[in-house]
Amino acid sequence: AVQFIVKMVDLASSIKKLGQDDPRRVIHSLKVGLAITLVSIICYYQPLYSNFDETAIWAIMTVVVVFEFSVGATLGKGLNRGLATLLAGGLSIGAHHVANLSGNIGEPILLGFFVFLQATISTFLRFFPEIKARYDYGLLIFILTFAMISVSGFRDDEILELAYRRLSTICIGGAACVIISIMIFPVWAGEDLHNLIALNIEKLGNFLEGFGDKYFSTTGDEEGNDGNKFSEGYKSSLNSKTSEGSLANFAAWEPGHGRFPFRHPWKLYLRVGTLARECAYRIEALNGYLNADFQESSDVSTVIQEACTKMSVESGKALKELALAIKTMVQPSSADSHIENAKSAAKNMKSLLKSGIWEDIDLLKVIPGIAVGAILVDVVTCTEKIAESIHE
Amino acid sequence: AVQFIVKMVDLASSIKKLGQDDPRRVIHSLKVGLAITLVSIICYYQPLYSNFDETAIWAIMTVVVVFEFSVGATLGKGLNRGLATLLAGGLSIGAHHVANLSGNIGEPILLGFFVFLQATISTFLRFFPEIKARYDYGLLIFILTFAMISVSGFRDDEILELAYRRLSTICIGGAACVIISIMIFPVWAGEDLHNLIALNIEKLGNFLEGFGDKYFSTTGDEEGNDGNKFSEGYKSSLNSKTSEGSLANFAAWEPGHGRFPFRHPWKLYLRVGTLARECAYRIEALNGYLNADFQESSDVSTVIQEACTKMSVESGKALKELALAIKTMVQPSSADSHIENAKSAAKNMKSLLKSGIWEDIDLLKVIPGIAVGAILVDVVTCTEKIAESIHE
Repeated sequence: AVQFIVKMVDLASSIKKLGQDDPRRVIHSLKVGLAITLVSIICYYQPLYSNFDETAIWAIMTVVVVFEFSVGATLGKGLNRGLATLLAGGLSIGAHHVANLSGNIGEPILLGFFVFLQATISTFLRFFPEIKARYDYGLLIFILTFAMISVSGFRDDEILELAYRRLSTICIGGAACVIISIMIFPVWAGEDLHNLIALNIEKLGNFLEGFGDKYFSTTGDEEGNDGNKFSEGYKSSLNSKTSEGSLANFAAWEPGHGRFPFRHPWKLYLRVGTLARECAYRIEALNGYLNADFQESSDVSTVIQEACTKMSVESGKALKELALAIKTMVQPSSADSHIENAKSAAKNMKSLLKSGIWEDIDLLKVIPGIAVGAILVDVVTCTEKIAESIHE
Repeated sequence: AVQFIVKMVDLASSIKKLGQDDPRRVIHSLKVGLAITLVSIICYYQPLYSNFDETAIWAIMTVVVVFEFSVGATLGKGLNRGLATLLAGGLSIGAHHVANLSGNIGEPILLGFFVFLQATISTFLRFFPEIKARYDYGLLIFILTFAMISVSGFRDDEILELAYRRLSTICIGGAACVIISIMIFPVWAGEDLHNLIALNIEKLGNFLEGFGDKYFSTTGDEEGNDGNKFSEGYKSSLNSKTSEGSLANFAAWEPGHGRFPFRHPWKLYLRVGTLARECAYRIEALNGYLNADFQESSDVSTVIQEACTKMSVESGKALKELALAIKTMVQPSSADSHIENAKSAAKNMKSLLKSGIWEDIDLLKVIPGIAVGAILVDVVTCTEKIAESIHE
């Protein structure tokens, strides 16, 4: 019994955490509940058509399947469902008509052939990456509707009636989804994408700002605790490619909202995201040095230390500046000067290395700062270019 | 007209490429076409129940929605659909019964409340990552079935009949999917995962084997072409986290097949995959050095060059050995000796650096080999440990 109580407390706290991490999840759950209840009540009280059962089935099914977390995803699925049903309905009525003409023996053979053909082609089309990203659900519905209408043993006029009923119920369900999704605390995929990219770049900046001090610190004790906290932030951007891609897809379905016009260049965000990820790979490598046990001796020349610290702090500041610029959607003002500072620090370091003025210091300690810092400056420059192109 | 022809030729070649990249896609499309046609024909010729339309709808819908590329995904969706329908059916009949007792006014209120409650809770549950990974589709079907049955205005005995019909048609559709999916050229998610991990590690090995020569090569011309080919391979493992995760999820649904028993430790593959990805991040950093313009002067001490080349070639060989070991599922035999070689090369380099015998060489050229090579050895050691734990 005690074990059970412990488990229940665990469960309750994990539920609470899930809700607190993103309160929109709770709101979304309530919205879905509301939409389904609303559509159910409409179906319950107003049987528009004689056959109540079927109406309810399609309307409720549409709500359950179409209602997604963000407005863009909901709109995309709703449009996919509506258009695919319309298209498949039209084609299958044609197929049905052709099959009808070929007599009692030919009809099932022809129908089977049509169904096989369209299912095979549509399934194959779903493998194309571009089609999968935007029209996957539509093709699914297309296969379904075509097969269902072709095979049903109805006469032509009955089919028209059926198609009309299906479409109108899907419209009821889809409209309920879209209206509730937009009216009540809307979740915009575009805004999420915008914030995600800015947050990722900011985290990279945070890491870099802290990196120099952390790496050269002689008092590794209390800083170590800080370090563990600050170093984990950037990891989220290593694997954010998939979520960025789907958010951009959803965002393309959304109408203009808030600060974002209808055809906001969402693809540019993906390019910035890719550059940020490349930067994060370098930082992951830097982080490896932080955890490795290279830091025994402490007779490092202060010149190198200063240059490394400066490079990482300055590029960190530049990245945070760029993140802020993305967030507030203004031109980054002081990022350029930070980048210049980082570049000149890198130049100093290079000339130091070439002059060979240092002989018996432990090279292993300065290597990462030199090596990765130089690459980082390049990446920062790229990011800046893209950020500019967004704000044009 | 010419433009149209060019476009059609483009389209045809991209279709051909898609099919050639993975011929299983064509087979899968044909399998889906076969399954849908089969189920449609069964429905067409044998109306098991009086109401033909409904039978066909549910059976065809099940096939379209459940039939996925791999056996594991198909089985997972089929089981999710079946169990969720059963569970929701039972609960909603209970809810319907309770609501019936409360009279004409109370009934719709109670029903609406039940529907709202279960839709909200189920939607919220779908945000839990563990639940989303395995039971997302089941929860969707649960919401759908519960709402549909609760709201339908049937008497209790009619509902039982409806539930029985739905379940039996879902079983027909699901069985057709599973049988065709397993019998005709099955695609096992587990095998895909196995091959993906082995391939990723092999690509990392290929890069490392070529890296030393490429980086220090004075004849950069013809090697450069090779280089562009060999360096792109490893990039696929940078972003493979999502696909590895979903393959492992699907694999968990699969029965034993070929060389894999039923409860094969698929999670170990994920751990190996994560380690390989960490290695790939380092290699991405290495690759940055390759593209940067650091290689002007060529007065690098041959000692360093040899050590770097040896480290990268040996760790590359070790990785390829491990990949082969995973593929053939035997203990890696000679990987250990390659790792030892790489380690001793790293040790040599470290002592060289500490002794400070070199004064006026261009440090910028040897940095990556020294720095990243050392980390790579660590990663290789980790990978080896995991590979061993799999073959235990």
